[in-house]
Amino acid sequence: MSLPIEQWRADTPATQHLVHLNNAGASLMPRVVVDAIVDHLGLEAEIGGYEAADLRQSAIDDVYGALAALLGSRARNIAIVENATVGFAQALSAFDFAAGDRIVTTRNDYISNQLAFFALRERAGVEVVRAADLPEGGADAEDFARQLRDPRVKVATVSWMPTNSGLIQDVPAIAAACAAVGVPLIVDACQVVGQMPIDAPALGCHFLCGTARKFLRGPRGLGFLFVSDAALEAGLYPRAPDMQGARWTGPEQFELADSAQRFENWEFSHALVLGLGAAVRYALAVGLETIQSRCHELAAYTRTKLSAIDGVTILDRGARRGAIVTAALRDRDPREVVRALHRRGINTTATLREWARLDMEAKGVDAALRVSPHYYNTVEEIDRLAEALLVDPAG
Amino acid sequence: MSLPIEQWRADTPATQHLVHLNNAGASLMPRVVVDAIVDHLGLEAEIGGYEAADLRQSAIDDVYGALAALLGSRARNIAIVENATVGFAQALSAFDFAAGDRIVTTRNDYISNQLAFFALRERAGVEVVRAADLPEGGADAEDFARQLRDPRVKVATVSWMPTNSGLIQDVPAIAAACAAVGVPLIVDACQVVGQMPIDAPALGCHFLCGTARKFLRGPRGLGFLFVSDAALEAGLYPRAPDMQGARWTGPEQFELADSAQRFENWEFSHALVLGLGAAVRYALAVGLETIQSRCHELAAYTRTKLSAIDGVTILDRGARRGAIVTAALRDRDPREVVRALHRRGINTTATLREWARLDMEAKGVDAALRVSPHYYNTVEEIDRLAEALLVDPAG
Repeated sequence: MSLPIEQWRADTPATQHLVHLNNAGASLMPRVVVDAIVDHLGLEAEIGGYEAADLRQSAIDDVYGALAALLGSRARNIAIVENATVGFAQALSAFDFAAGDRIVTTRNDYISNQLAFFALRERAGVEVVRAADLPEGGADAEDFARQLRDPRVKVATVSWMPTNSGLIQDVPAIAAACAAVGVPLIVDACQVVGQMPIDAPALGCHFLCGTARKFLRGPRGLGFLFVSDAALEAGLYPRAPDMQGARWTGPEQFELADSAQRFENWEFSHALVLGLGAAVRYALAVGLETIQSRCHELAAYTRTKLSAIDGVTILDRGARRGAIVTAALRDRDPREVVRALHRRGINTTATLREWARLDMEAKGVDAALRVSPHYYNTVEEIDRLAEALLVDPAG
Repeated sequence: MSLPIEQWRADTPATQHLVHLNNAGASLMPRVVVDAIVDHLGLEAEIGGYEAADLRQSAIDDVYGALAALLGSRARNIAIVENATVGFAQALSAFDFAAGDRIVTTRNDYISNQLAFFALRERAGVEVVRAADLPEGGADAEDFARQLRDPRVKVATVSWMPTNSGLIQDVPAIAAACAAVGVPLIVDACQVVGQMPIDAPALGCHFLCGTARKFLRGPRGLGFLFVSDAALEAGLYPRAPDMQGARWTGPEQFELADSAQRFENWEFSHALVLGLGAAVRYALAVGLETIQSRCHELAAYTRTKLSAIDGVTILDRGARRGAIVTAALRDRDPREVVRALHRRGINTTATLREWARLDMEAKGVDAALRVSPHYYNTVEEIDRLAEALLVDPAG
């Protein structure tokens, strides 16, 4: 199979001068994404912000259809939200927690989600229960299922792919366990969206949130939330719905939107929304299966190349691993290495213990180098990274 | 006093072909705002989204200082939030409501805030109490103070200027009443920011939220929240703090940021943030006193001109009125009039009963024409609006 790699790179002008291996942070936007944003900003300056939204209403509506196509869902199940954290918080806020209620999660859930749980523990007396990990890494879906069998469990959550390692959690098994006992599940798919095919309705989760800026290659400052029919039918809604999510139907009455829109707020940067739409269409045109196989192959190649370097230890664990590679560096501070690589035109990042305490403490490291290739990267770029790490002791 | 009106209009190229009187919706961005946004988007595409944020960190930090200057506050009291609704919801979420707790507000609070209160009533049994209006319109600060003297009152809120009329609420008196009895106050200043000088610390409110896109002339999709020292010292924090607002300090511990940052989420469009900064600096350079006196004069002139037209009734009430003019139109649907004016190159908008039930029902109208001039508008533009309404029965 011949892949149009040159076309992808031509669509991403920065690849001509830059090795961008920080796609799990924020990927490079294809030119069509930047153009869509800049065009709409120009229109807003030319005719007014509300007037531009009116004029482009059908293009804005189409973004929901594009996201629905990406997630195997219908447009009515898609909420566009300010970012994935807002999406996750909106979903979590649909549940009224009382003291003793339980949230079941994993040892690898995203830091911001963990912080939200801690706050609920402090404020509402919620108990946070984490499923045990398998010996090879990743949550034990059977233990997850066991923890669900407690009547105090109110909701379950899982980060499909933690931001601090290449682990892919077995979300289908976890979602099936939740569905079997009727516990609502919130999936944080931030690192998976745009990297792997997703069929959100087939998972059976109540909510699934994602971000625009990572593997989806959209703009910073935007995200989305899939809301299942079951969640809508259960009447779930966020703690503070606004005029986008509800109508003021009488002096003291309100009525929720019958779609996922009830989880949206009214105000948007429509420029960013249109950029997100362009990013989704671009990903669909490349093909999610193609994207997945190529970026996972490049990640596997990265692990092989880096592990051959003296003093480098690959930290990624789990039965299945994706397009994030993390490595411990003997005698080198990953933050220094990231800066040195940056000076050589190679973008990577460092992941710190304080962002993933449970996982990083189990691995016994304070910081790791994180390399996240995407489908538009090349083997030669990975080789350049490996060479830079080899020739320069400071990275 | 000679004002640099031509310069303001030159900085806003669309004024050459457009009469924009929808500044209470979204104002026209000055060129420097659009340039700041587009420049940063270009940088993100050129060097990467995280790398661009690192490179522009000091410019991003400066935006907090600019907002602090706008609000008479310090940078540590400023949170940048996704939009004003998120800011208001974050502030409201700092309080744990139990059944019977009361929120004291006005009959003119913004629809989205009202919907949030209704949701709290339905979900948590919170009671919503609205201060009576004065005969001339606007909340009676004495009645507001009376309602506060109930031990069940947990928090008070006021929209400084409702979106559906020119009313300016007596926020200093309401804030003083709250401070006198120690009830935390959340001020929604969306329509006031960029239109009038604000000294948030002097008000003594706990929180004050605002938006970028209205009279401040910033981008759509961004807002901010002032958090007072008293609110910080009281240990208030949002229901779902994320890694921007808190640190994960031990396996089961977290620590809040000691500044207003605890009300922020981590992910931003830094392009929009830099655009907001440019808008704030532009407003400060024009001068808030200058802005206020000019746009209030233009609004008063608009009321005079429109009320001279047969079948037009000005709806704005209250002892003090600002740069929003609302008018009932006999035998004409304001939505149709807005479309007809738009065809003549004049941007206005319609405000509907369902967005402001209590006020619009008291006024006995289903819809009103809303005209919101800003300091860069001219008397000639108001005259053009009036002529268009006169010569064309459809508007």
